[in-house]
Amino acid sequence: MRSAINKVSYSELGQSLTPSAIASVMTIALENPNVLSLAAGFTDNHSLPVLDVGDAVESLLGRSDLPEYLQYGPNQGRPELRYIVAERLMKQDGVLYNEEDRKKVFITNGSQQALYLATQVLCDRGDIVFVESPSYFVYLEMLKGQGVEARSLPVSEDGAIDFSAFEKELICMKKSGEIARVKAVYLVSYFSNPSGESRSEDEKMKLAEVLHRMGEPIAVIEDAAYRDLYFTQEHPARSIVSLDAFKGISCLYLATLTKSFATGLKIGSGYCTDGEWLKRILWLKGHHDFGSSSFTQAILESVLSDGRFDSHLRVIHEVYQEKMNALHAALCDEGLATVGWKWKKPLGGLYLWLKAPEGTDTRMGSDFWEACCRNGVLYVPGDLCYGGVEVFDNVRLSFGVLSKENLVGAAHRFTETAKLFSEIE
Amino acid sequence: MRSAINKVSYSELGQSLTPSAIASVMTIALENPNVLSLAAGFTDNHSLPVLDVGDAVESLLGRSDLPEYLQYGPNQGRPELRYIVAERLMKQDGVLYNEEDRKKVFITNGSQQALYLATQVLCDRGDIVFVESPSYFVYLEMLKGQGVEARSLPVSEDGAIDFSAFEKELICMKKSGEIARVKAVYLVSYFSNPSGESRSEDEKMKLAEVLHRMGEPIAVIEDAAYRDLYFTQEHPARSIVSLDAFKGISCLYLATLTKSFATGLKIGSGYCTDGEWLKRILWLKGHHDFGSSSFTQAILESVLSDGRFDSHLRVIHEVYQEKMNALHAALCDEGLATVGWKWKKPLGGLYLWLKAPEGTDTRMGSDFWEACCRNGVLYVPGDLCYGGVEVFDNVRLSFGVLSKENLVGAAHRFTETAKLFSEIE
Repeated sequence: MRSAINKVSYSELGQSLTPSAIASVMTIALENPNVLSLAAGFTDNHSLPVLDVGDAVESLLGRSDLPEYLQYGPNQGRPELRYIVAERLMKQDGVLYNEEDRKKVFITNGSQQALYLATQVLCDRGDIVFVESPSYFVYLEMLKGQGVEARSLPVSEDGAIDFSAFEKELICMKKSGEIARVKAVYLVSYFSNPSGESRSEDEKMKLAEVLHRMGEPIAVIEDAAYRDLYFTQEHPARSIVSLDAFKGISCLYLATLTKSFATGLKIGSGYCTDGEWLKRILWLKGHHDFGSSSFTQAILESVLSDGRFDSHLRVIHEVYQEKMNALHAALCDEGLATVGWKWKKPLGGLYLWLKAPEGTDTRMGSDFWEACCRNGVLYVPGDLCYGGVEVFDNVRLSFGVLSKENLVGAAHRFTETAKLFSEIE
Repeated sequence: MRSAINKVSYSELGQSLTPSAIASVMTIALENPNVLSLAAGFTDNHSLPVLDVGDAVESLLGRSDLPEYLQYGPNQGRPELRYIVAERLMKQDGVLYNEEDRKKVFITNGSQQALYLATQVLCDRGDIVFVESPSYFVYLEMLKGQGVEARSLPVSEDGAIDFSAFEKELICMKKSGEIARVKAVYLVSYFSNPSGESRSEDEKMKLAEVLHRMGEPIAVIEDAAYRDLYFTQEHPARSIVSLDAFKGISCLYLATLTKSFATGLKIGSGYCTDGEWLKRILWLKGHHDFGSSSFTQAILESVLSDGRFDSHLRVIHEVYQEKMNALHAALCDEGLATVGWKWKKPLGGLYLWLKAPEGTDTRMGSDFWEACCRNGVLYVPGDLCYGGVEVFDNVRLSFGVLSKENLVGAAHRFTETAKLFSEIE
């Protein structure tokens, strides 16, 4: 078969796309089977809910009505699943719901798609989205691909968001007119990827207050992808869509139904408080794919309705806590802290977020990176997780995929490399 | 819970989105349960492969290795499924393949997503894509949403593409410089939605010759969504990616694996002969959702490998042929042709494409449309299927969803309305 010779020309977006950084890390892992990868954000293979999915499919196929779960479904998502998602959210937030609220839910191919759609209808090239330091690097790559500037929310000494500095920045932007380009603030507010941190209600309310004082139409996107992945207890903060402080602000709350169950089913959800924004997101989804798989949605309806989803959650809470503890303990035992590395034990999520000794460059291609590759251990360089600021001395380690044994092995290799660098300096 | 008051402002794309025309037709159908809808392009519910899907899931879950089909998978799609897709295409086209060719396949959420991604990396606002008259109306809506102009390929008296007129048009555009905005030609070349027509190899080769003579970097997108849905035999034309005439032209061939099996699994594929275009499509897919559901892909691998997919195809070929015949015969028996309506019996696909008597306005909201709604029958107005030309007297009737009995009832209602209009005029 023939290959193209006369190359086509690309759109502005097409030209500005670049390969995902994580893709090149995964290529290294594939090409070197002996490497232990703490990079990929995949989930634990051994605890995947094979029996639950089997039961759900069996009960679906055993129904005597028409197999509509094998047919196209509504663009916005299956009504029953949307209903369940709304109910779960209200239960988690401890608030009441009504029929109108339930209509605000939509279903997507993972929460990633909801994030893309929401951003695409809001942002032109040159627009600005404020993000946390650090933030979810795939979103940062997506923003770059759309030509949108990710700007970091200012942080105080202790790493908390400095809302007073944020307000001053917005006031400056208002004077210069630049504020018209600010479309949204994006928070990964529960056991964040990559930091493992959660945002308190107090922080969320401070954000709402700043936005109200500014009076500008800036939306807030809350990405709760890891909310269900707590170790021992849910994070107590309610979501932005349940806090009265956000009344009058366009809010989008994103959740995934499959990161905490079976990522291979790829179903996420959005809850959008702004009817006009929601409408446009849905019209755009009509163009992207006019609806997500009915079958995987129906499987989730089944396991969410009969308690199997929640039982599975209890299983994986323990699995991930043990894995996190294994990696954390191994890094401690190996003596990583003694050579100047710092990190906190997270209360949920899939990541340890490490700060290297001042001045260490952990970027891809740096001496430290190369040494880790040679020593057979991979990580996500922290610089990928910052928008508009240059921070080179962080590292994200994922404990989702590797077995406890391999986590210990990876911790050994990582610390060994870190110690080598400590001696050099 | 609160609703947003301060509305956010939208991107240029966000502002230019409009609801899908078909969505309003479906709303009418939902609100009027006695209506018989010949509008929706859904597939037959009664022949959905419940047992095949059950067997496939059982064999997946029974495997003793790790359940990777419930885990995230590669952004480009599962290697085995991509291999099978390449093999099927080569077999259909009767050509040889090699390892490199297989790498050109990617998997998407239905072929719709492939179409969106491919267009998004090619086209800026104001760019032009040439389409057939008529063409797939969801693609026309998608182009409009992206701010891209759909322009109709010129047609001769008999309705065939007039390639000589097309070449003249391109030469004019070359002189004016407008040709730089022409990014692609889009063909629905097998049992088209909506016309039911297929393109011969001769037509495809004429297109390639025009493009070669122009020497401009214009891509060709061939949408083969209905290729598997023939009634008695495959259409003999090879695809553009297998024809030597297209050597040197960037080609994208789109197929769906689920329209002809179970649309609820929502898996499509693309085969792109231009490595650079493919790379950008994949980088963008990484932003949209970083990969389609592993589980539904694995189900398709299973049924494609063990012959169940092909057995099911044989079943639905008969189902749709019978349904097409039922609708066609009922329209004939009712006497629709005697009042000036014309149509051809298609050889595959899901639609009858009717031409009303000269001057009949069938658009949504027209007297004819309203009369059909009152009489309890819905159709897709043909004007939605044209880019840049105004044609108001066509109608698309779908025979995919309704039972044979209801198709006969719908044909009665439709013809009754048509006769009423014939008397008025």
